[in-house]
Amino acid sequence: MPLPAEQLLRTLDAHYQAMPPVAAMQLRIAGYDGDALTLEAPLAPHVNDKGCAFGGSLVSLLTLASWGLVTLHVQQAGLEADVFVADSEVRYLAPLFADLRAQARIAEGQTWDEFIATLRERGRARTTLVATVPLPDGGAATTCRARYVAILRKRG
Amino acid sequence: MPLPAEQLLRTLDAHYQAMPPVAAMQLRIAGYDGDALTLEAPLAPHVNDKGCAFGGSLVSLLTLASWGLVTLHVQQAGLEADVFVADSEVRYLAPLFADLRAQARIAEGQTWDEFIATLRERGRARTTLVATVPLPDGGAATTCRARYVAILRKRG
Repeated sequence: MPLPAEQLLRTLDAHYQAMPPVAAMQLRIAGYDGDALTLEAPLAPHVNDKGCAFGGSLVSLLTLASWGLVTLHVQQAGLEADVFVADSEVRYLAPLFADLRAQARIAEGQTWDEFIATLRERGRARTTLVATVPLPDGGAATTCRARYVAILRKRG
Repeated sequence: MPLPAEQLLRTLDAHYQAMPPVAAMQLRIAGYDGDALTLEAPLAPHVNDKGCAFGGSLVSLLTLASWGLVTLHVQQAGLEADVFVADSEVRYLAPLFADLRAQARIAEGQTWDEFIATLRERGRARTTLVATVPLPDGGAATTCRARYVAILRKRG
């Protein structure tokens, strides 16, 4: 049976905080509307030599937002699967001198229904996500397009 | 006047350790032969929910190795420049259940001489680097191809 979104987000947050490199990021789940998952982290622990956000931190947050969104959809479908990132393309468009925020959603042309149906039928499925770190005044600091693979652990 | 490699590596290490997200990674410079720069970090602070290295940590280490190699070449040429990552493509090929190691070098078809000459002439230059996280038993856990931009601060 599908779990309520609030419980899924608590589970996801616990999952994030249980990973040492993620706990060090001081991230928090800022929102989930069924479509997009948004994560936030303060700038201070992510600042680089130029006083803006470190590229590795930006990719980490983008990766966690996308990974978390896939995980939420798997769990909402009552399934249990390991979710892996397969590959990613990142564009660093502008430096970010503010707190970090990353929002992930499924790429155009892909649907969660198709992804979940494939996962149920074949025990594994792949989908593409897009994620963005916005600039405070509009536009994007960083964008990411990445493929994720889910492999079923057992049928729900 | 070019600085000796040992001094450049000490400066680079201080640069890394001065960035809070990098200091948290517990990385160290493991080698530099003029061609490839190698960084290492223990697995423990980088472990994910599956007991292997977190994707964001792998990208961070790959990014830092490539960024560091560009920085070393800029400084060896007696120049001062800000070095930025412009974009990157990462492939996660296999999980890594061992300490992290990333090695960066310039991509085929690119040369440091050309990069440095362009930087001197135009005040900015771009080059492509490839970096790999090897598996302990051979092969690669993760590979990265990324473009870096250097912008001259002042002529040395």
